[in-house]
Amino acid sequence: MASSQTTRWLWRNVTLFDGLEQLPEPMVVLVEQGRVAGLWPESGFDPSLARGAKEAASGGVMTPGLVDCHTHLVYAGDRAGEFEQRLEGVSYETIARNGGGILSSVRATRAASEDELIAASLPRLDALLADGVTTLEIKSGYGLTVADELKMLRVARRLGELRPVRVLTSLLGAHALPPEYAGRADDYVSLVCDAMIPAAAREGLADAVDVFCEGIAFSPAQCERVFQAAQRHGLAIKAHAEQLSNLGGSALAASYGALSADHIEYLDEAGVQAMAEAGTVAVLLPGAFHVLRETQLPPIELLRRYGVPMAVASDANPGTSPICMPTLMANLACTLFRLTPREALAGMTAHGARALGLGLGRIAVGAPADLCLWDIQQPGELAYAVQAGRLRQRVFNGEVAYAR
Amino acid sequence: MASSQTTRWLWRNVTLFDGLEQLPEPMVVLVEQGRVAGLWPESGFDPSLARGAKEAASGGVMTPGLVDCHTHLVYAGDRAGEFEQRLEGVSYETIARNGGGILSSVRATRAASEDELIAASLPRLDALLADGVTTLEIKSGYGLTVADELKMLRVARRLGELRPVRVLTSLLGAHALPPEYAGRADDYVSLVCDAMIPAAAREGLADAVDVFCEGIAFSPAQCERVFQAAQRHGLAIKAHAEQLSNLGGSALAASYGALSADHIEYLDEAGVQAMAEAGTVAVLLPGAFHVLRETQLPPIELLRRYGVPMAVASDANPGTSPICMPTLMANLACTLFRLTPREALAGMTAHGARALGLGLGRIAVGAPADLCLWDIQQPGELAYAVQAGRLRQRVFNGEVAYAR
Ligand SMILES: [Zn+2]
Ligand SMILES: [Zn+2]
Repeated sequence: MASSQTTRWLWRNVTLFDGLEQLPEPMVVLVEQGRVAGLWPESGFDPSLARGAKEAASGGVMTPGLVDCHTHLVYAGDRAGEFEQRLEGVSYETIARNGGGILSSVRATRAASEDELIAASLPRLDALLADGVTTLEIKSGYGLTVADELKMLRVARRLGELRPVRVLTSLLGAHALPPEYAGRADDYVSLVCDAMIPAAAREGLADAVDVFCEGIAFSPAQCERVFQAAQRHGLAIKAHAEQLSNLGGSALAASYGALSADHIEYLDEAGVQAMAEAGTVAVLLPGAFHVLRETQLPPIELLRRYGVPMAVASDANPGTSPICMPTLMANLACTLFRLTPREALAGMTAHGARALGLGLGRIAVGAPADLCLWDIQQPGELAYAVQAGRLRQRVFNGEVAYAR
Repeated sequence: MASSQTTRWLWRNVTLFDGLEQLPEPMVVLVEQGRVAGLWPESGFDPSLARGAKEAASGGVMTPGLVDCHTHLVYAGDRAGEFEQRLEGVSYETIARNGGGILSSVRATRAASEDELIAASLPRLDALLADGVTTLEIKSGYGLTVADELKMLRVARRLGELRPVRVLTSLLGAHALPPEYAGRADDYVSLVCDAMIPAAAREGLADAVDVFCEGIAFSPAQCERVFQAAQRHGLAIKAHAEQLSNLGGSALAASYGALSADHIEYLDEAGVQAMAEAGTVAVLLPGAFHVLRETQLPPIELLRRYGVPMAVASDANPGTSPICMPTLMANLACTLFRLTPREALAGMTAHGARALGLGLGRIAVGAPADLCLWDIQQPGELAYAVQAGRLRQRVFNGEVAYAR
């Protein structure tokens, strides 16, 4: 890390997407001390402004490092078998009710040691990094006991130490009802509120608390108890809501000042309005929409009209979105949800960061230098074409962490 | 290449998909002289059978090298702008009629030199190779003059020399009507039949002749003239047919003994029957289906019932499938077309090869050793999960051509 503190890096003649929009002309970018220290139009650039800086690269498209603000990256086992079942017409809900779905990942994850979870998760993390991710969120939720949820969160933290990437963690104890609590959902929610959340907070393992508010998961009343416990312990709030039906989970989360409500295919106008008023980000997850062949589109026009920021994330998980490729998510967000390429890219940079409560995902003087340099002509190509290997440089915290 | 002629390579304990199905137990694979020389169950394997062979790897999933039997990989320019237009609701047909679509790629490709086309196409080729391709087909069709079509075919041939990969070429002069022939489609077809095909055959630049049989392209009668010219010059026949409407192009192509009919979303039972009788392969192109948000599914059940082999290909092209990731195609074929993972993988190996008239795409004693070794547990994961970087080794012609 020392070199990033001393080397001043210069990028010349880059086409720059700053996290919200494309700048009108080619730019020069200076990085020092882990931050963007200068930003000038290429035309008429005075090199004395960056005396002593080393040229990192010239040309290409620069974006903020990608922010994947919703992942379930840590798990053991896979669910390729279920994938085949769904191809035979079995619904996700039926698979879940039959003890498959999330619970099969729970069994495998409970049985795995921290090191085994690290080994299983690292290739997925590396795939995200190779496609430009510099910040990601990782949820627990396949442990569903105090010890196993904390184990998952520790693994998530360790992943952030093993690779040059920023990892934020969310405790998702209220992901599914574990079989040993069948018929006693309220008791399980008590475990989440009275044991998991306090323990995760005490050990500094969780940056946020998340819930799955859905008919096949937890009711709004149960989610509200979780939100209250999160508030008591000073943790941020997020929610899986309105994915398969409209239970009002997004508005509820917004009323607790949630950072984001995620999925939201069934969100109605009242929910959109509640999110707008609370500043809650809408996290769109087109991977699960694709895998589940959903047809109910999230209310994109309403979100635009109310000015709710839209983030786009991978939802990387073994069941409904086994996809570790953020640029594919940009393509799916455009193709399936009809976002513009600009909206999709903002969703994976500035708005993705906002969904994590972070002031990242922008390229501006003074901002942390998390950057990607892509071998393309225009930022929109990231959403237009699906092709691995276009990332030329990944800059994390001012340091070139990946270069072909 | 010399080393492949002398080194004997041994893979131990691989889970093997042979191009049609997964073998029931872990296998040992011996390669020498560019061919598969031995294939034994791991249990009870007698190492004296492979004395002197070097162990190439142990564990993982082995498949035949992937065959991408339908690509438009060679072109200049891109169409990210059109991508945005389509997001604003403009149809592909409207874009085409307004001189966009294929014709914008034609303008850029005509203006490009061979070297410029090589430079533009190599990153796309490298993306395919990094995801397991050992054989691909490349079509012309953005030149639409004798000189420019031959230029594209020469570029395709040169790509096959620049990288360790097998390239087959198809002359697709009848891709679109060039603007200078507006209102004179029959005259243009005469140019294809009387000048392009003879020249491509004479110079050995084309392995097959392809057509786009569609309302926005060429009529069945015009396509038939092209097929007849192809036959006169001893070239194989392929067709883009029944993509947007049912004109009977597939049955027509089958009646000329076509290797394949491609797209075929609107294919009817009579067409399926004609293909079955002629041994014509059905090439499914889920990338274009995804990008164009089609809803008319190809007749998968009929193809199964009549025993028509189904191939799956990328259709990599700048307009309707800017996707250079064959494993994503397996995912799309399953998710969108409801193929099983086994069918999708056979479609990218044994049946893909058959769509090119090649006896490749199988792992069997005596077969050419084009192989992929993947860091996964089960072959179906290639279709289930979308994640770059899972290819551990790519073996081309008996030689390990790619290893992380
Ligand atoms: Zn999720
Ligand atoms: Zn095509």
